Amino acid sequence: MKPISYSNPKLDEVTVSTKPVFEGNIISLQIDTVKLPDGGTASREIVRHPGAVAVLAIHDDKIILVDQYRQAMGRCELEIPAGKLEKGEDPLEAAKRELQEETGYTCQQIRLLHSFYTSPGFADELIHLYVAEGLESGEAVPDEDEFLELYELTLQEALEAVKSGRISDAKTIMAVYAWKLQQLTGEFRI
Amino acid sequence: MKPISYSNPKLDEVTVSTKPVFEGNIISLQIDTVKLPDGGTASREIVRHPGAVAVLAIHDDKIILVDQYRQAMGRCELEIPAGKLEKGEDPLEAAKRELQEETGYTCQQIRLLHSFYTSPGFADELIHLYVAEGLESGEAVPDEDEFLELYELTLQEALEAVKSGRISDAKTIMAVYAWKLQQLTGEFRI
Repeated sequence: MKPISYSNPKLDEVTVSTKPVFEGNIISLQIDTVKLPDGGTASREIVRHPGAVAVLAIHDDKIILVDQYRQAMGRCELEIPAGKLEKGEDPLEAAKRELQEETGYTCQQIRLLHSFYTSPGFADELIHLYVAEGLESGEAVPDEDEFLELYELTLQEALEAVKSGRISDAKTIMAVYAWKLQQLTGEFRI
Repeated sequence: MKPISYSNPKLDEVTVSTKPVFEGNIISLQIDTVKLPDGGTASREIVRHPGAVAVLAIHDDKIILVDQYRQAMGRCELEIPAGKLEKGEDPLEAAKRELQEETGYTCQQIRLLHSFYTSPGFADELIHLYVAEGLESGEAVPDEDEFLELYELTLQEALEAVKSGRISDAKTIMAVYAWKLQQLTGEFRI
């Protein structure tokens, strides 16, 4: 459920040096030189990220989504509520906070579904995906530079949105898979 | 299936300026200043990535995985075969190439399951996830600085590996969900 660390002496690389390149408000970038298993060296471009939370929340048989402009793609994205971890913040508390800030909803129960890396090849971003149940609506209080629209889709509408490409980010597709599976088996978790 | 672009005048941001920060072998980094829907401005840290392919390949009722050291997390990751797109490369050809290079397997049929963004908040990486069928084994030919170990897991073993955190990256968890769903419904695609 949470990532476990393990080692494989035939595959492990060893950090030789780290060169900081950029330190931003959200991410930082460094170039690591590593020693390969065969003794050679290679260069790795690495993005550091504080980690994030995301929430699969079903209310009245509809999944709660937020539409938001994403500069990286130059388009809006329909995503489950999510946000980055504040420094030292507990992921579960962050999940409840983001759900309430972005959608106004509070929940009676919340539990971890998966923690997963989004881009192992170049970034350490880890998303903790929660399932929230027992939802009650309230007023959203998004961040100052955050402009959102709330959407609530039935399973059929969400599946159509995945098929059409209207939903096209990893965590949201994963959440729709989990919901579909829950409808078939009674359990969100695989 | 493929992401579709759409606009929402209440949410859209407009790029005011772009400052290049870093140009690497795989990723580049820039800081964009954007005009917000309310007329204010904000800064966005953006990673550009060439895009990637990944392959869900089932052979003799086992999913084909590769174990690989990932410097971003400082640990090995058990992932479906994947790799970045070469310049101008067709994603379907890239998927066949990566499958063969990393695992030795060739396939008789291959089709797109989903294209998805991994980290909409800060990166434009788009992964094209394919399903390969009719597999035949052969010799793997990994890149020079790529050290891999092949694993083949049953559905039950793959589900256990997701639960334990041994599998902990988004594309691989999504592939295991798709496989589980295919076992229940006959269709990989939701």
